[in-house]
Amino acid sequence: MAEGIKINRQRLLARLDALSSIGRNDEGGIDRQLGSLPDEEARAWLTQCWQESLGLTVETDGIANLWGKQAGKDGKRPIVLGSHHDTVPNGGKYDGALGVLLGTEVLQTLQEQQVELAHPLWLLSFTGEEPNDFSVSTLGSKVIAGRLTADDVRKMKHRKTGESLPDALKRLGGDIDKVDAARLGTDALAAFLECHIEQGRVLYDEQHAVAAVSCITGIYREVITVCGEANHAGTTQPKDRRDALAAAAEVVLAAEAIMKDPAFAGVSVTIGRLTLTPNASNIIPGNVVMTFDMRTADAELRQKALALWQGKLRDISSRRAVNIQREMNLDQPEKKMDDMVIQALEDAASANGQEPEALVSMAGHDAANMARVTKAGMLFVQTINGYSHCPQEEAAADAIEIAANTMLEAVRILDRRLDAYDS
Amino acid sequence: MAEGIKINRQRLLARLDALSSIGRNDEGGIDRQLGSLPDEEARAWLTQCWQESLGLTVETDGIANLWGKQAGKDGKRPIVLGSHHDTVPNGGKYDGALGVLLGTEVLQTLQEQQVELAHPLWLLSFTGEEPNDFSVSTLGSKVIAGRLTADDVRKMKHRKTGESLPDALKRLGGDIDKVDAARLGTDALAAFLECHIEQGRVLYDEQHAVAAVSCITGIYREVITVCGEANHAGTTQPKDRRDALAAAAEVVLAAEAIMKDPAFAGVSVTIGRLTLTPNASNIIPGNVVMTFDMRTADAELRQKALALWQGKLRDISSRRAVNIQREMNLDQPEKKMDDMVIQALEDAASANGQEPEALVSMAGHDAANMARVTKAGMLFVQTINGYSHCPQEEAAADAIEIAANTMLEAVRILDRRLDAYDS
Repeated sequence: MAEGIKINRQRLLARLDALSSIGRNDEGGIDRQLGSLPDEEARAWLTQCWQESLGLTVETDGIANLWGKQAGKDGKRPIVLGSHHDTVPNGGKYDGALGVLLGTEVLQTLQEQQVELAHPLWLLSFTGEEPNDFSVSTLGSKVIAGRLTADDVRKMKHRKTGESLPDALKRLGGDIDKVDAARLGTDALAAFLECHIEQGRVLYDEQHAVAAVSCITGIYREVITVCGEANHAGTTQPKDRRDALAAAAEVVLAAEAIMKDPAFAGVSVTIGRLTLTPNASNIIPGNVVMTFDMRTADAELRQKALALWQGKLRDISSRRAVNIQREMNLDQPEKKMDDMVIQALEDAASANGQEPEALVSMAGHDAANMARVTKAGMLFVQTINGYSHCPQEEAAADAIEIAANTMLEAVRILDRRLDAYDS
Repeated sequence: MAEGIKINRQRLLARLDALSSIGRNDEGGIDRQLGSLPDEEARAWLTQCWQESLGLTVETDGIANLWGKQAGKDGKRPIVLGSHHDTVPNGGKYDGALGVLLGTEVLQTLQEQQVELAHPLWLLSFTGEEPNDFSVSTLGSKVIAGRLTADDVRKMKHRKTGESLPDALKRLGGDIDKVDAARLGTDALAAFLECHIEQGRVLYDEQHAVAAVSCITGIYREVITVCGEANHAGTTQPKDRRDALAAAAEVVLAAEAIMKDPAFAGVSVTIGRLTLTPNASNIIPGNVVMTFDMRTADAELRQKALALWQGKLRDISSRRAVNIQREMNLDQPEKKMDDMVIQALEDAASANGQEPEALVSMAGHDAANMARVTKAGMLFVQTINGYSHCPQEEAAADAIEIAANTMLEAVRILDRRLDAYDS
């Protein structure tokens, strides 16, 4: 009788509504950034839900990741379902929260239907996945994967309030002295699965509800400083100008040209931040500082794009007699998801009447860090119009139901295949 | 014996040094902005100098312009020599101060040499010529010319301290209730002459010491807002992007292209201020706001350039599916200097061994406002390397001496010719 089991759509949607009321602002968006009061409240809400409705043992590790654990059986390692409950400022209802509550629904359905898995199934809500005022994203999973240590965490503080991250962690149930113990070895978990909204328009344009994630993009980021010469807007003749903004404009268009070049399909390039000095209407700009963000799941293409980029900047610099400095501040390699998990998600999607599909994630996720310590995979849900990180962010109820049933099925498939693999 | 009279170079340079110590900062620049304590101190210093060394009657009008007056003779209207004593933040020693002190030296030389002019010679130091935190430049001359009234002045306040401009004027010896009385009719003055550093490289590159100004540039300024769509830097595909910064980059280069087009020689175009929203490295810019500053002494060329500009913006807007809004916030017409004054300056330069030359001023000056009420003219002095509005601003002592002797001669020539003209 466990064959045709389905999740409870109404219960899942009701929990999404309930959690979205925590941190809701006047614009209809959600403010639940790392260390905020709504972050604390969401943790209390999740703890109560997991304890009272699912009978889980809830634990908070050193970096304040929230774990909902079932007792183990036969010494098998757990399969973990999770995502994050924090949001960007004025964020949406689904980014993060959907993955946590969908995992919750999958586990509760299995309990109700008395489906016995070979592996224990745990829930996880990560600390500080989104960019935040402590200047660190995917914080909880970075610590689990050993990419950040307690010493790193000790140095971080809130750029507005000045609160230290260890102090904030204490408020959230974490403990700086146990941060290093939150790191997991590669033998700790059997698998990690995360459901997340796509945040792009691929599934929406295709009218597909879900897709497995094949790979999480690499992100390369540098700060570019263009130094020209500030001068009088009227009295400086064209021949004497070394306008940093005009040079920066060529830099912006050169970046865009790489992205639009068919030879670099799948490479995403963005200049998102730009400031000039002195920034006055009657002074030729002397200095421009900007960020360059490049993403691709293809390491070889990344190298080709960076070589082209370097050549373009050299050309602009020499033609315009401006100095262009580059400082790399992020070089996060792409992370392939586990083949067995991808296959389980695709088979589960098929079993739910969906065309199996695998997409590259062009956004970073905790799953990229979890892939360093276990078999990790992600399930993307269609995002209406691709809107994300804003109040308009939405996943349709039907797509959510399909995603939850796909995840339910994928867990059962994986539970069997992992068992065969482990033995 | 009055034929070969010359100014006192050492006295003029010593006064330049003395005035430059008022408001001097640690970087070697001068902070003597409108309403500052150094503005008050400079006024006290000038008042003492004009009273004690030249025996003038010093008066402060409603807008706090500082006048040094000689008693009139035969009811003739005065010739006025002046400039301003305020500076930009971290400004230089010569911009403004040179014109005031050079006028002072010319008058003192005439007194010492007992040269009797037909017209009384007055000195004038304007209030708030430079851009300042009350958001108004050439303040004193605008009031004289009737371009600003007491009602306008009442609305202005310091954008940092919040002090009202009437309160600041009171500290400077002005009186808001007498601002409208500071306006001059076209019959009040016989002529106005201002000596000023060129602030560009034309005379420096030509190795000429001085030139008359033929015309003060018109300045047209607009604020341009480019509205695209903010979106995720990773998940938004190239085809779906409406990147406001990429469109703004084309706007910047289109502005530059107009200036570099030989058909628009003498037109100066600058995008000096630019800000983007949300300005985050991982978000495609949704909005860019920038200023467009265009200067030319040729009204016809200005219209042609604006028509071309409009077409370029329309093209960018439609190709990139971004909205581009334009808001004009300054449209100051070019102002020709008076032919009789230009001729007197050129003849005086010749008499001092200089090649006669007339240049367009690409910067705004009080003389443009004074030209509305009297015969106005300017004498430019070579600026080393064209540096201005910075501590490196410099005019060579030899060039200053030539300029002062040229102005001395020009005043004498003009005094004679005006007399013929008036009678």
